[in-house]
Amino acid sequence: MPDPIITLTTDFGEDSPYVAAMKGVILTLNPAARIVDLSHLIPPQDVRHAAFFLAGCVPYFPAGVIHVVVVDPGVGTERAVLYVEAAGHRLLVPDNGCWSLLGRDAASPPTVLRLNEPRYWRESVSNTFHGRDIFAPAAAHLSLGLDPKKLGQPADEWVRWEMPQPRPVANGWRGEVVFVDHFGNLITNIPAGVVRSAPDVLQVGKKTFRRGFRWVRTYGEAKPGALVVLVSSAGLVEVAVAQGNAARRLGAGVGTPVTVGWAR
Amino acid sequence: MPDPIITLTTDFGEDSPYVAAMKGVILTLNPAARIVDLSHLIPPQDVRHAAFFLAGCVPYFPAGVIHVVVVDPGVGTERAVLYVEAAGHRLLVPDNGCWSLLGRDAASPPTVLRLNEPRYWRESVSNTFHGRDIFAPAAAHLSLGLDPKKLGQPADEWVRWEMPQPRPVANGWRGEVVFVDHFGNLITNIPAGVVRSAPDVLQVGKKTFRRGFRWVRTYGEAKPGALVVLVSSAGLVEVAVAQGNAARRLGAGVGTPVTVGWAR
Amino acid sequence: MPDPIITLTTDFGEDSPYVAAMKGVILTLNPAARIVDLSHLIPPQDVRHAAFFLAGCVPYFPAGVIHVVVVDPGVGTERAVLYVEAAGHRLLVPDNGCWSLLGRDAASPPTVLRLNEPRYWRESVSNTFHGRDIFAPAAAHLSLGLDPKKLGQPADEWVRWEMPQPRPVANGWRGEVVFVDHFGNLITNIPAGVVRSAPDVLQVGKKTFRRGFRWVRTYGEAKPGALVVLVSSAGLVEVAVAQGNAARRLGAGVGTPVTVGWAR
Repeated sequence: MPDPIITLTTDFGEDSPYVAAMKGVILTLNPAARIVDLSHLIPPQDVRHAAFFLAGCVPYFPAGVIHVVVVDPGVGTERAVLYVEAAGHRLLVPDNGCWSLLGRDAASPPTVLRLNEPRYWRESVSNTFHGRDIFAPAAAHLSLGLDPKKLGQPADEWVRWEMPQPRPVANGWRGEVVFVDHFGNLITNIPAGVVRSAPDVLQVGKKTFRRGFRWVRTYGEAKPGALVVLVSSAGLVEVAVAQGNAARRLGAGVGTPVTVGWAR
Repeated sequence: MPDPIITLTTDFGEDSPYVAAMKGVILTLNPAARIVDLSHLIPPQDVRHAAFFLAGCVPYFPAGVIHVVVVDPGVGTERAVLYVEAAGHRLLVPDNGCWSLLGRDAASPPTVLRLNEPRYWRESVSNTFHGRDIFAPAAAHLSLGLDPKKLGQPADEWVRWEMPQPRPVANGWRGEVVFVDHFGNLITNIPAGVVRSAPDVLQVGKKTFRRGFRWVRTYGEAKPGALVVLVSSAGLVEVAVAQGNAARRLGAGVGTPVTVGWAR
Repeated sequence: MPDPIITLTTDFGEDSPYVAAMKGVILTLNPAARIVDLSHLIPPQDVRHAAFFLAGCVPYFPAGVIHVVVVDPGVGTERAVLYVEAAGHRLLVPDNGCWSLLGRDAASPPTVLRLNEPRYWRESVSNTFHGRDIFAPAAAHLSLGLDPKKLGQPADEWVRWEMPQPRPVANGWRGEVVFVDHFGNLITNIPAGVVRSAPDVLQVGKKTFRRGFRWVRTYGEAKPGALVVLVSSAGLVEVAVAQGNAARRLGAGVGTPVTVGWAR
């Protein structure tokens, strides 16, 4: 059987020693653990970015992997650290909703525990670095086969964050940008299924386009620099600029309203 | 025998979930695969940067490693996905020339296959994310020992991209910047072998230096801030600023003409 | 026994092929080596940043791990490459003081060797890339069990860099910023132990605060945007902005003087 895998997702960046310290703590407790970096460039304290990020990658991992997520503006406050099993995936997360978009369609409800057993933490716990002192050792113990129930008590409630919902408008659908990716592509909350034919009108923030954009299957169908609308790899309506940056071009970001419409 | 290695080179950045999704797909198919990140900061869609990047690292890897490269402005179009064996190295690449600088001096021609066997892909293939849906599963299957011939058909032609060639000019050589590294060092296409003595003249773009630069063995021979010319670690003429950033100082980038000359 | 671990800390960035080339060299010599990235975003040539970075993570790793550090403005000059054992940790470093903050409290003095045995290097050594040609192969040989003594000769002296020391002033302590982390938090050299009650006065550079800042246990105790002073995860006085960037807000960086004081 291959050695156990622990993934790391943080907003710590790579210029600071924080991620590396977590890796050291994990490998000290379980020298055989295989650590896989998912991202350390979640924007600082951006729990919603983290939620969308996790929804875009955790489902592709095999069951059994332990996903550690430290995007944690509430570190050291009363917010809990949770162990979660959702749709077959195992996570250690701060209780701030960052896992909200996972397992929403799962057959069974998630298992959620509040960590309260310091014997699985580092002996001295900093108020500002639970990643090193709680998350990393707890993950290492899990990777060694520890029964998660030993980590804490079942939780009855936890912070949830739901994606805003799009709504039908006259001749179209109105939603908003929920994620801006590395390329500046604008991912909206409008499901691709509502788009049955090429839209005639596109609104992004205060900008309305009746011409000057194309509904395409993929970026490369349009000339470099062309504004396009297409189906994202997550099945959502996406606004992009072929070989360019739509966020910059349109001055758009998370929360910018987007409408796709049909003239008739 | 150690577990198989798959390397990843993309322009996906780390703020988006795309790299992590690929890792999940690979580990689902082959939980024992060892994934090694080469870079996820290839500039967006910059195939030439990728070509130079790969030439600077792939040759140092052992044979047998599977190198996955997803810098792919043509994703979802008719461009093929290729399996390549060149100079003993194995790659999965989009057919856009990104592997052009590898194996040019190899004794035998490369083996090139066009992937066309969807049984080794994810069941549903997004038009915008072949990294997750084609490259990652194909790499995982190869890492499990799949005969590459099962992935597709031999290809007779493919996109090539050649590095521009320098040319002799009166009393010198004229080339251009082909890569700007993380430090802002300007790597040119002029082979170090043509420089038999310290040059007297340096031109970078429209700037001509007759004094004010030094031919050195290494950066530390000059004072911080000094303009220097030296032999890069790839054996090419390089223009640098000791402990500084030559690209910024000289306003130079890929394509900027560079001439080194001798007064007599 | 798990396969040996080699960590990498560099200022090479990820857009250049240098880190990847080092990984290739290591895996060619020892295909079973497990490579763990600590950071490739140490600011270019910033030896002090590297020293603080290493002090913040190396102590958390298990003994036996080989830490390779290539932040090396003196590459190719007379500066030595060192093998160091300090406080149970093993490092390969350029002799520029980057490991100075490790093992200062260790019971026994460090073991330090100057590498001079080219049989453990690559056959041809570039003057500008010892990471690939000396550090990587030496680390791979160590990971295969090579006795470090074979790498070189004991060194009697080496470059040291000491953290500047804070000093008591009338009604307080005066120190300076020694590290700015990814969040823009300002880590000072003032040990938390000197702060026995909430300070009344904070000076950062030329800015003096008598109100408008709070002494807190953790960021989340203050409202987003509030200026706070707290104990860093390394046990040092830290100036931060809750969910904000103190370095940007205060125009501060490494070397900026910081004073905490008590009105009576």
